Amino acid sequence: MDNVLAQLDQVLIARKQADADSSYVASLHSKGLNKILEKVGEECTETILAAKDAETSGDNSDVVYETADLWFHTLVALSHLGVDSTAVLKELQRRFNLSGLDEKAARSTTK
Amino acid sequence: MDNVLAQLDQVLIARKQADADSSYVASLHSKGLNKILEKVGEECTETILAAKDAETSGDNSDVVYETADLWFHTLVALSHLGVDSTAVLKELQRRFNLSGLDEKAARSTTK
Amino acid sequence: MDNVLAQLDQVLIARKQADADSSYVASLHSKGLNKILEKVGEECTETILAAKDAETSGDNSDVVYETADLWFHTLVALSHLGVDSTAVLKELQRRFNLSGLDEKAARSTTK
Amino acid sequence: MDNVLAQLDQVLIARKQADADSSYVASLHSKGLNKILEKVGEECTETILAAKDAETSGDNSDVVYETADLWFHTLVALSHLGVDSTAVLKELQRRFNLSGLDEKAARSTTK
Repeated sequence: MDNVLAQLDQVLIARKQADADSSYVASLHSKGLNKILEKVGEECTETILAAKDAETSGDNSDVVYETADLWFHTLVALSHLGVDSTAVLKELQRRFNLSGLDEKAARSTTK
Repeated sequence: MDNVLAQLDQVLIARKQADADSSYVASLHSKGLNKILEKVGEECTETILAAKDAETSGDNSDVVYETADLWFHTLVALSHLGVDSTAVLKELQRRFNLSGLDEKAARSTTK
Repeated sequence: MDNVLAQLDQVLIARKQADADSSYVASLHSKGLNKILEKVGEECTETILAAKDAETSGDNSDVVYETADLWFHTLVALSHLGVDSTAVLKELQRRFNLSGLDEKAARSTTK
Repeated sequence: MDNVLAQLDQVLIARKQADADSSYVASLHSKGLNKILEKVGEECTETILAAKDAETSGDNSDVVYETADLWFHTLVALSHLGVDSTAVLKELQRRFNLSGLDEKAARSTTK
């Protein structure tokens, strides 16, 4: 799964320049930052509701789906401001003192 | 940056089992899902405010920091429910038809 | 302005029982609590964005409009659960030690 | 309950001018609009969580409490921008075509 976000960054860069009629991402950019942030807020609420329902039902599929929607829309917001997922990952790496370098070692501890 | 999230998943698994007094993550788990979701909501609001301020100031450092905080707390929520970042990345991959396999090819298009 | 919320409570009770095709409120109730709470979250984000913009522009009309939307949707949520605005006002009264009784005295201190 | 919000407006005006050390509201104003809006976002999330729990438990006391907290913090935000609850009530009145004038008639239909 390692480079999904790097690939998604490329998709977001391409769609930011696309025609607003041809792409959901392009249409969000053309509507401006407020509209993108409204979507971030909506997806956050849907993530919270899905997590509450998952706790009751034991079914995690919706909360995973909504979290992906939330992350995606935060990446559109960052793209609107000229940043990509690398900056977020670097901040997480710094904060948790993760290597990001020694991939083999990390992989040996993950399945 | 490729395996930062996979490493973070490992950190979250370890801290979920730690003593609540010794770890912020463990203390969140011991307080329960509502407390974790309150943090998700807080970090979402802080991300939105930081994005608005970044649009005015041109300085993206705070919005990157807050987005990392938001992603981190969504991962704590997912960890509480027994899921990790792989599920989110798989959903993004499925949705955007990303390969996730051909790492070298993807890297050649990213810096 | 005194009894606007009491009147709105009556409207909400009537519309809760209306046909879902004929009323926005009835359609929200028929979709269930999650859909109503999604709207509460949306309106909260819009209120926050409008407040940020009001701080810059000096024009408060949008933030008032969005706050009214937010309050309205919280009242729909409470109506779904069987409560009305009176319970919220009683809680505010209790918390701030407001009388709620001596209307004339209060009015003499307001314009 | 009729004039609770009008009284609360007066409390908020007084506390806006109070010393930041002596009053929670004054301390929020001194920290600025972002801090006030963070609280609005927090209370919105807590309202949503409390509503979900009320649906399961049948106990509405928490959701009423959190809604009061949310309304209160939106009024602090409006006060920071120079508006009060009257503007919100006027917007609700306009939207729902409520009289706001014929108080006796309204009261006769409420308990």
